[in-house]
Amino acid sequence: MLATCRAPDGQGQIHAQCDAALVWKGGEILWTGPDAALPAETSSLETSGDAENRLVIPGLIDCHTHLAFGGWREDEFEQRIRGISYQEIAARGGGILRTVSATRSASDEELSARCLKWLAEMAALGVTTVEVKSGYGLTVEQELRILRIYARLKQKQPVRIVSTLLAAHALPQKFLGNRAGYIRQVAQNLIPEVARQKLAQFCDAFVEDGAFTADEARTVLQAGMDCGLRPKLHADQLSDSGGAALAAELGCISADHLDCVSEDGIRRLARSGTVAVSLPLASLYLGRPPAPARSLIDHGVPVAVATDFNPGTAPSFHLPLAMLLACTLQKMTPCEALKGATLYAARAIGEEERCGSLEPGKRADFVIIDAPSVNHWIYHFMANRPVATFIAGKRVEAADRGE
Amino acid sequence: MLATCRAPDGQGQIHAQCDAALVWKGGEILWTGPDAALPAETSSLETSGDAENRLVIPGLIDCHTHLAFGGWREDEFEQRIRGISYQEIAARGGGILRTVSATRSASDEELSARCLKWLAEMAALGVTTVEVKSGYGLTVEQELRILRIYARLKQKQPVRIVSTLLAAHALPQKFLGNRAGYIRQVAQNLIPEVARQKLAQFCDAFVEDGAFTADEARTVLQAGMDCGLRPKLHADQLSDSGGAALAAELGCISADHLDCVSEDGIRRLARSGTVAVSLPLASLYLGRPPAPARSLIDHGVPVAVATDFNPGTAPSFHLPLAMLLACTLQKMTPCEALKGATLYAARAIGEEERCGSLEPGKRADFVIIDAPSVNHWIYHFMANRPVATFIAGKRVEAADRGE
Repeated sequence: MLATCRAPDGQGQIHAQCDAALVWKGGEILWTGPDAALPAETSSLETSGDAENRLVIPGLIDCHTHLAFGGWREDEFEQRIRGISYQEIAARGGGILRTVSATRSASDEELSARCLKWLAEMAALGVTTVEVKSGYGLTVEQELRILRIYARLKQKQPVRIVSTLLAAHALPQKFLGNRAGYIRQVAQNLIPEVARQKLAQFCDAFVEDGAFTADEARTVLQAGMDCGLRPKLHADQLSDSGGAALAAELGCISADHLDCVSEDGIRRLARSGTVAVSLPLASLYLGRPPAPARSLIDHGVPVAVATDFNPGTAPSFHLPLAMLLACTLQKMTPCEALKGATLYAARAIGEEERCGSLEPGKRADFVIIDAPSVNHWIYHFMANRPVATFIAGKRVEAADRGE
Repeated sequence: MLATCRAPDGQGQIHAQCDAALVWKGGEILWTGPDAALPAETSSLETSGDAENRLVIPGLIDCHTHLAFGGWREDEFEQRIRGISYQEIAARGGGILRTVSATRSASDEELSARCLKWLAEMAALGVTTVEVKSGYGLTVEQELRILRIYARLKQKQPVRIVSTLLAAHALPQKFLGNRAGYIRQVAQNLIPEVARQKLAQFCDAFVEDGAFTADEARTVLQAGMDCGLRPKLHADQLSDSGGAALAAELGCISADHLDCVSEDGIRRLARSGTVAVSLPLASLYLGRPPAPARSLIDHGVPVAVATDFNPGTAPSFHLPLAMLLACTLQKMTPCEALKGATLYAARAIGEEERCGSLEPGKRADFVIIDAPSVNHWIYHFMANRPVATFIAGKRVEAADRGE
């Protein structure tokens, strides 16, 4: 079964066809359609194999990760289970700032090696494009360093990388008592330099009690837009802090988390065409209700599904598990979750022209999954269902996958 | 780090040691303890390797599965997401009776081949012992057939199999209007034959609206006990139907599910020494709150964690995922979940003398996991963390693992 996941027709329509063929050349899809209707001119192309009765889907896109970080925080996982709040852990020296410290003291080589291993494991899960955020540097130099590590990763392995500057992730300790100073540094020094060096396509900010206010985020994202960085927003994760409204106001390409989004916020997102990025792993790990995906979909907001991979609140990059949670915890159907992890995820990172669906002219990024249907794949959760991942028409080999 | 998981000391104590050694011979553990204290007489034994800084745990035990079944029910997964209840799906011809029909029409070879594949994949996840229930036959002949398939699986692959007769799983269609007739057939014909052929060690029943009453289950389990089959019970899954009280009254070795167990039921289980088997995957897939694990533990009830693998409500045999859910949804610590999937799981299937912990005299069933600690393993959920699974001292090879 070939699930093309092409637009339009809404979240649940994946345009699946049986007895279908996918034709590609030089990394680009030329044609998809019924086997029986294969155009004559494709007969000169090499046949690369029969997926038999397996499922073929567009390469999965993880449109929200914090990939480069030092250390881990598995002790905080146990602390949260024992009832200590995220905010309390941060006050004790845990949380984001602990990872900032571990990241700053890790070498480029160490951070890069960790990312390479994880990207290979993501590819084995069927992921072909990953959005990666900075945000554990929190100085001009450290944020640039992380973005440069991401830039070099693009050359070193096949998974596509899309970079986002998230300097407004947490207030660095040095600026306690001088919030405006940090915002100014980000807006006036860091953002122009990131844009000049073309190190990121997007600028993101975390609006929340304990992170940044809507006004601070507006200043940062506006500075980003002035330099050509498109805005994204961590919005309404732990409280309804006006994140969705701000994302709509600024025309953010995505508003992420949204666990606490209001009805009014949902309406605004629908009008602005912003993609809602749902991150159910973070909700699971925090023990909180996830974003109201059904209400978002019913209001016409496209809902992407991603992992939020980070060492605190979502320490797993298992995107198919996030999709299972979207189905079980958020009542998205498997087809809706698939469109959320392909076409709508591509839209959330401005890649819809290049990937996210199996259509002529797009990259030949696709995955062969050992399941007869999308429902079966998501429902019969196994360690690893993909039998092959292709990026730009080339099969990702076991060596690339770190095996 | 060597987590021996030995008794006693309660759910959270796993007796982990760093710089530790595990000595085994002929499939049996001879000694564990600090490297530095290795007894002189072990120096004549071959050294089988250094786990480096990895985690070594007892082989995982999945103490509740419905392993042999025909077909799948992935369409019902989507139906439940769309709001159709489990009971409504059953009334439309879905549910357990649909799997009964698919199982009856599958050949021995087909059922056996499916089980072999899954057992190999379970071993790759670190599972070394699996409890397997009948219950999709629902005639004397078909239930015996499934138990015989299980008996033959013991010879065909290395994972240990413990069999349970679950003829009181659902009322077969033929006996609609003659409930007493089915109970009589099970108690008088099937159970004695299962005992005579030594095809099961346990007898189980499903007490629930739409399945069997407490009195019917009592008749079945009493008949089992008369023939030497120890009782288990599917109790208080969808409603508080007196299951825990019945399990305590009969001295069941385990009471499974317990999502809706009452405070009184918990107290009774604590007094009877019954193991509570928590099945959080089933709760997740059904979109219902899981068993109150914290309250059970606080009352002194040992809580095992298992998958409930079946084609309806828990179509995954990923035991480490069930453990992650025990932590995130039920607030068990990772160490508590580990003891629940090793020592207490062994207790739930009467295997505590043979496995479930790394202690002299027990089988050398253990797993080397690519993680520095139990917290890290459970928290950083990856597709597959074990680097090697050993059963009775022998490494399960990739061929056995179906790779």
